[in-house]
Amino acid sequence: MDLMILSPIGAAVALIYAYYLANKVTKQPEGTEQMAKISASIRLGADAYLKREYTSVVKFFLLVFVVLLALSVAGFMDIFIPISFLTGGFFSGLAGFFGMKIATSANARTAWAAKKSLNDGLRLAFSAGSVMGFVVVGLGLLDVSLWYYFLQYWFRALPEAERITKIASLMLTFGMGASFMALFARVGGGIFTKAADVGADLVGKVEAGIPEDDPRNPAVIADNVGDNVGDVAGMGADLYESYMGARVSASALGVAAGLGVGGFVLPMALAGLGVLAAFVGTFFVRTEEGADQKKLLGSLRKGTYTAGILVAVGAYFLCNLVLGAGHTGIYVAILSGLIAGIAIGYFTEYYTDSSYKPTQALSATSETGSATIIIGGLALGMKSTAIPVLIVGISVLISYYAAGGSSSFAMGLYGVGISAVGMLSTLAITLATDAYGPVADNAGGIAEMAGLGEEVRERTDALDSLGNTTAATGKGFAIGSAALTALALIISFVDQVNLIDPTALNLSVTNPPVLIGLFVGGMLPFLFSAMTMEAVGRAAQSIVVEVRRQFKTIPGLMEGTADPDYKSCVDLCTKSAQKEMILPALLGVVSPVLVGLVLGVNGVAGMLASSTVSGFVLACMMSNAGGAWDNAKKYIEAGNHGGKGSECHKAAVVGDTVGDPFKDTSGPSINILIKLLSVVAIVFAPVILAFSLIK
Amino acid sequence: MDLMILSPIGAAVALIYAYYLANKVTKQPEGTEQMAKISASIRLGADAYLKREYTSVVKFFLLVFVVLLALSVAGFMDIFIPISFLTGGFFSGLAGFFGMKIATSANARTAWAAKKSLNDGLRLAFSAGSVMGFVVVGLGLLDVSLWYYFLQYWFRALPEAERITKIASLMLTFGMGASFMALFARVGGGIFTKAADVGADLVGKVEAGIPEDDPRNPAVIADNVGDNVGDVAGMGADLYESYMGARVSASALGVAAGLGVGGFVLPMALAGLGVLAAFVGTFFVRTEEGADQKKLLGSLRKGTYTAGILVAVGAYFLCNLVLGAGHTGIYVAILSGLIAGIAIGYFTEYYTDSSYKPTQALSATSETGSATIIIGGLALGMKSTAIPVLIVGISVLISYYAAGGSSSFAMGLYGVGISAVGMLSTLAITLATDAYGPVADNAGGIAEMAGLGEEVRERTDALDSLGNTTAATGKGFAIGSAALTALALIISFVDQVNLIDPTALNLSVTNPPVLIGLFVGGMLPFLFSAMTMEAVGRAAQSIVVEVRRQFKTIPGLMEGTADPDYKSCVDLCTKSAQKEMILPALLGVVSPVLVGLVLGVNGVAGMLASSTVSGFVLACMMSNAGGAWDNAKKYIEAGNHGGKGSECHKAAVVGDTVGDPFKDTSGPSINILIKLLSVVAIVFAPVILAFSLIK
Repeated sequence: MDLMILSPIGAAVALIYAYYLANKVTKQPEGTEQMAKISASIRLGADAYLKREYTSVVKFFLLVFVVLLALSVAGFMDIFIPISFLTGGFFSGLAGFFGMKIATSANARTAWAAKKSLNDGLRLAFSAGSVMGFVVVGLGLLDVSLWYYFLQYWFRALPEAERITKIASLMLTFGMGASFMALFARVGGGIFTKAADVGADLVGKVEAGIPEDDPRNPAVIADNVGDNVGDVAGMGADLYESYMGARVSASALGVAAGLGVGGFVLPMALAGLGVLAAFVGTFFVRTEEGADQKKLLGSLRKGTYTAGILVAVGAYFLCNLVLGAGHTGIYVAILSGLIAGIAIGYFTEYYTDSSYKPTQALSATSETGSATIIIGGLALGMKSTAIPVLIVGISVLISYYAAGGSSSFAMGLYGVGISAVGMLSTLAITLATDAYGPVADNAGGIAEMAGLGEEVRERTDALDSLGNTTAATGKGFAIGSAALTALALIISFVDQVNLIDPTALNLSVTNPPVLIGLFVGGMLPFLFSAMTMEAVGRAAQSIVVEVRRQFKTIPGLMEGTADPDYKSCVDLCTKSAQKEMILPALLGVVSPVLVGLVLGVNGVAGMLASSTVSGFVLACMMSNAGGAWDNAKKYIEAGNHGGKGSECHKAAVVGDTVGDPFKDTSGPSINILIKLLSVVAIVFAPVILAFSLIK
Repeated sequence: MDLMILSPIGAAVALIYAYYLANKVTKQPEGTEQMAKISASIRLGADAYLKREYTSVVKFFLLVFVVLLALSVAGFMDIFIPISFLTGGFFSGLAGFFGMKIATSANARTAWAAKKSLNDGLRLAFSAGSVMGFVVVGLGLLDVSLWYYFLQYWFRALPEAERITKIASLMLTFGMGASFMALFARVGGGIFTKAADVGADLVGKVEAGIPEDDPRNPAVIADNVGDNVGDVAGMGADLYESYMGARVSASALGVAAGLGVGGFVLPMALAGLGVLAAFVGTFFVRTEEGADQKKLLGSLRKGTYTAGILVAVGAYFLCNLVLGAGHTGIYVAILSGLIAGIAIGYFTEYYTDSSYKPTQALSATSETGSATIIIGGLALGMKSTAIPVLIVGISVLISYYAAGGSSSFAMGLYGVGISAVGMLSTLAITLATDAYGPVADNAGGIAEMAGLGEEVRERTDALDSLGNTTAATGKGFAIGSAALTALALIISFVDQVNLIDPTALNLSVTNPPVLIGLFVGGMLPFLFSAMTMEAVGRAAQSIVVEVRRQFKTIPGLMEGTADPDYKSCVDLCTKSAQKEMILPALLGVVSPVLVGLVLGVNGVAGMLASSTVSGFVLACMMSNAGGAWDNAKKYIEAGNHGGKGSECHKAAVVGDTVGDPFKDTSGPSINILIKLLSVVAIVFAPVILAFSLIK
């Protein structure tokens, strides 16, 4: 039975549902005139940012396109690779565009809905998040489905086995466009959002002594824009990339394992099934008035868990239908990925949420000042890497052996690949709960700026606070899925090389090119993080200067009789983000090629393995330390250790500020880096094989 | 020509010279009565610490000895392994004991000599450092020489080729005793020194407002003791271990490469040659009155460089004499290691010394507060990992190919092994310039406490400041040599497994046990660092409480009419260090065995490779960030960015405090961890092969 059809069906359901939800959201009232005005400013800023980003990204895409085209003319790659590079980038960009559109439309509406009831607020924000979630998976499925059917038709003259091998190996390279787009979105957005946030806080809260989200702060709109470009568009692009990479690499591994069309189709059909499950899951998300944080979280969880259970049940039949009986092992691999994703999310929450011991203990270290809370946060972050590593390790082990690794290496690796798809199968709803966060955050900001009153602010605060938890969980999930996806991609890279020249491979960890590759790969995420952190520092500095200038030169600003120039701050952030994202992006693109040309394919394999490991660990550490500092500060603000304004609070603010680029710029950007390195290596494998210094 | 004799000759020269220098040092006057009293307190504290440490370490050694004995009776290892485990630990402990004895005898004498002239102070402190340096290499050479000749005799019935193979594979395991000892010395000492330092500063400088090294501070003696137990004994044990590990693994690789006795002897003879070169080098260290920091550094460098050049020349002839003509490639490998060590030291200085741009730029980030200087320091540390990684990579590449790796894998690996020995060949003098630092630091403290006057204090400050630079360089060298040694040990581990069961090996980075091993190994240094940082935090907290108690309950203390109870702080630090070092130590010992029992030898190989990479990068980052923060603070204290007491200075103090456990506890302890993991894996290889879950 050709269940590939589940992929376009999933795409259709996702996109139609997203369209329906988007319509529903935009039909809601935007509230008072002031709210509409604020929301329009945020929208304007976000649009301006996106336009500018896409303009500069298009240039970059064309440049790479020309290089790929030249290489393809020279016979180093198929002509479809440069073309798919463009379509991948296009669809990924489109997903970001729609996601941001809906998020910036929903913020004021959420605040206004929260005026009615908590449930209305939650439903609206979650609907907006769902639009993002379903658009991402819908476009992801569409891209792959279109190419699959087109290539099936194009290569119809080839015998089936040869045809599917050809298609699998081609489509494996199709993730590169999405990866490029994701890198720019994540790094640029990450720099934008933290530059605005840090800049606004340093001058507004610290120097001028006005509260957060105060409309007199010239950087306040930029801060809100930042939530959207960083957390919505950036996160969406990140997971779009994982979603693409996991499926195409699992499919390629399935073909390599000798499972033929069935091996190719299963990951794609599984993704389609996941969309249907997520679709059902969204209907389980609702709450009642007066629900506390735990209850709110429970209502979001109900949706995610429902989707997970549906996939867990459906995947069993899917495996049998697609591969025929006797592939329970593959099913176990899918399950292990699904469970690993949930488990990593849970432990992320444990380490970063103030209702658990680690973050409470961290906030206690503020008693002896900012140095000890910094040391405490770094130690917490480092410690928190152990469990995710074990989860990934166990999941890989189970997938490999369950899928039959002890008798067939290739089958085992297919198990590892498909477990990544299992983890990402319910992405639509996972991403919905994640993208919900920034919408709620923005809604809170707008409620504050528009003076909506205590009760509404309380409700948006509850929604926002929940958003912080889902953001942390979502980050853990994003890192975990990036690591599994990167693993699948690395294995696929080796398979690709094996297809071209099996004699080139000597992947032993004691082979010096591999060893040196390991060293270089282990260092890359560190260098990359340093670059992005310094970029945030420089960009924030320019915002500080601008906000100070406006406070000084605009008469009546502090008294509230004159408006600040929001646009100039948005422009500054946009410019800085565009400028600063180039160098880290280049590092991701150039490293595999350069390492390959010197150390050969074995060196590249070492580099990929090591950068995935070190990137995974570093990203966990940075995200969790950042999340814990943030929540430790909130915990103190809630009245512990002296509360707001105390010495402890001051120390916690230092921790939170250090954590900002950790958790929102460098940490999540590493996810992209590790996948991009692998994808670039896959695409350039023939070039590396031909020209490398060390064979 | 049997040049193995260079090894005992080197041992004799080193030990005799050390004895001569020690005698010379202790003949110098200790200064005023007060100085003698202070010095005696420090000595007493250090002795008490050592006694306690050795007592608890002995128990641990006996425990492991029994386990090894049982395994040897059960046929899993040779009976010489448990015995050599004890001798290795004994010699390493002895080196630490002598080093600390001389350092604590020389501190007051250095201060008194500095009263005469800067040159006298430098010569005396350097002589004390030299005792440490020569004792470490002397005992290291002695241990190996005794075993070598004994085993030659013991196995005299075997034919030569078989005999040397047996000896090489046996002696490879002999590093474990030294590794164990080193771990305890480094971790315990690191916790002691930073607990005392942070505790003394937090209450003394920050709360009570008394200057550093003020005799009224009850923790001041503990702080001075800490310099000795952490920086002298810890650093010595660290490098003793590298020195052992590099030689025995290179020798084993030489035999594995089919070079027979010559391949075994060359690393040992090279080490002997290095001692002679270092001996000559020490005579080039002298300075004149009024020399500035640059000149002082130059005079220390003159000694190191002279030794380096002598080895570079001598090694050429040595290669020809030991291996016969036509082994220029091996010579190139030695050179590449020698140069890599110097280069890493240089770049460490570049990133951490305030006369260069990075640290100056870091101190400028203090203008916007402590959060930005923390971010800046972390970014600096992360960025600073790139060049050391490239240096190690290039050095490995050169050694491997120069030694003939392209035609013989085993010869290439021998090249990698011997380059580590090349790097460490001049260890005696490198370590002398390193151990000189804490002596000068202590001398400064004593000069302050004893009120020796402005001029003397200026001279000891100059010596101390130089000590900070050599400490940073020394740390870079220690990390670099640990990484190369660990690499050689990993390769030897694989060789050992290969000897027992070649079919067990599948070291491809895509083999799931290897992959998972990579993940676990990449995480271990992070977990280990978290443990040690938290240990420092807890230990410092107990000191804070005690110092506060004494300030409150001892009448007349603040007025200077009553003495504080120094001993109680020393006791507290000792107890905390002993307690807190257990868990991190266990992590290092248990991990390879546990990972091995689950994932098998391939998983262990992956874990070793990855922990070496991630440990190297993390240690570089932590040491360099810590060093840069320290010097940024000093740069501000020298009058930049507002000088002492300014807001910038306060921010810089936060950075420095965070940097303390980074650079003096966690960072350097990682060096030991990565070597210990490999050594334990080597010793337990037969057990792992027999019992692992996954084969």
